[in-house]
Amino acid sequence: MTTDWLVDGNPGRVDPRDRGLAYGDGLFETMAARSGRIRWLDYHLDRLAEGCRRLGIPSPDPVVLRDEIGATCPATGQAVVKLVVTRGVSARGYAPPADPEPTRIVGTARWPAYPASYYTDGIKLSTLKLRLGENPLLAGIKHLCRLEQVLAKLELHELSAQEGLLLDTSGFAVGGVASNVFAVSGAAVVTPEIKRCGVKGVMRRIVLESCEELGFRPVEADLEPKALIEADELFVTNAVFGIWPVRDLDGQAFRVGQATRRLQRLLGYGGRV
Amino acid sequence: MTTDWLVDGNPGRVDPRDRGLAYGDGLFETMAARSGRIRWLDYHLDRLAEGCRRLGIPSPDPVVLRDEIGATCPATGQAVVKLVVTRGVSARGYAPPADPEPTRIVGTARWPAYPASYYTDGIKLSTLKLRLGENPLLAGIKHLCRLEQVLAKLELHELSAQEGLLLDTSGFAVGGVASNVFAVSGAAVVTPEIKRCGVKGVMRRIVLESCEELGFRPVEADLEPKALIEADELFVTNAVFGIWPVRDLDGQAFRVGQATRRLQRLLGYGGRV
Repeated sequence: MTTDWLVDGNPGRVDPRDRGLAYGDGLFETMAARSGRIRWLDYHLDRLAEGCRRLGIPSPDPVVLRDEIGATCPATGQAVVKLVVTRGVSARGYAPPADPEPTRIVGTARWPAYPASYYTDGIKLSTLKLRLGENPLLAGIKHLCRLEQVLAKLELHELSAQEGLLLDTSGFAVGGVASNVFAVSGAAVVTPEIKRCGVKGVMRRIVLESCEELGFRPVEADLEPKALIEADELFVTNAVFGIWPVRDLDGQAFRVGQATRRLQRLLGYGGRV
Repeated sequence: MTTDWLVDGNPGRVDPRDRGLAYGDGLFETMAARSGRIRWLDYHLDRLAEGCRRLGIPSPDPVVLRDEIGATCPATGQAVVKLVVTRGVSARGYAPPADPEPTRIVGTARWPAYPASYYTDGIKLSTLKLRLGENPLLAGIKHLCRLEQVLAKLELHELSAQEGLLLDTSGFAVGGVASNVFAVSGAAVVTPEIKRCGVKGVMRRIVLESCEELGFRPVEADLEPKALIEADELFVTNAVFGIWPVRDLDGQAFRVGQATRRLQRLLGYGGRV
């Protein structure tokens, strides 16, 4: 099987001793490309740099990353561009090398064909049984250790919902399997704080930063499942699909409200994207 | 950089889209090779098969695994042989493919030069601040998501101890960063149950199975840090180094007791291995 992925700037494969494979010791970004341009690229690189800082991985030069992303991004149409940065190759053992040489991996994947109805009518969200383990040291960053999300997808596969809602061990809402969740209550647009587990999505940040412009109050807080059920509107976000209203959470129906619609329009997710 | 690792039976590298790299979606075994033979190979393959079953990864044919391990294992001397099995290459996204084709990766690493004193006088163990996140779905198996262990090693690096003791979010002892921990109290040889997090080590299983032969009572239980401090003897285990007595836990001194000595002798870790 051939790939057109770049590994450290050249088409190739990955050393079996790479710590990204060995221990999930790295980070990734999943980005929406359209007409040769990556949406929200600055924010993706910003989160990646924060992840590197948190894990003690030397941050790759952003100029090099932009070059390699540019070389990979299709000039036309839509695609997903994925960037992985690992702590690089090392001798065996969990202990990181003193002077790690990070590995950069960039490649593309097909644009998912999302039904237009996900944007207009909303999706069905089901609370999953799987509870996310909590570790504040890993919360927020998009590291490579994603087995919980893989198992969550297996659980979701048995249900008729488009996205699964994950709670943490403490019982608070964290987000979707591959998305963040927002609850609108009056003028407050509330999302889980992501301090014990979960990923701080790029689209989550953009929505929080967009609230004031629309007269909403952005709130990051511990969110009990009850607060979601009682919300006026619910929506989920990620950097690839953007914003999807939630029309049903565990059998409870929601209308697609004005806050969701206005955020969709402001950020360019009004309909088919 | 060249490697002599086998990927699916051939010298090579790993597809950047492999789910082991993308999501930590796989398992590994770290095995002690001596004079062309892997110690405890049946137990390693047994744990791997259990991990595959738990994650829904089709178990590779053990005959093929034994062949590839045999082809990799040095004919003389000591080495560490590492085996990785991932869910294979898939399209982007957490959702596993319906018919995964697992990737097998086998390679060797240098045998670590452990000081003889670790076996005779014991090691220093320090409780780390990092708390392991809890997820019963992942507890026990040796999956690839090991960032917590990487960060724990970074924390341990600042201390003068040889191994770090990890507690779970609930405050119970789980084990060392790369080992299991045992507390001897009278005739009871007690080790954490490994039901919320942690790895069920191959040497842990062997020690538990060896207890009766020596007149000890094996116990798997929730273990509070206090129970470790109050134990008659403490030791740590893994399949590479075997059994090391603990001579100091957080400044509390321990003698190397008869239970530890007898288990070391029975299993061939009497001194330099």
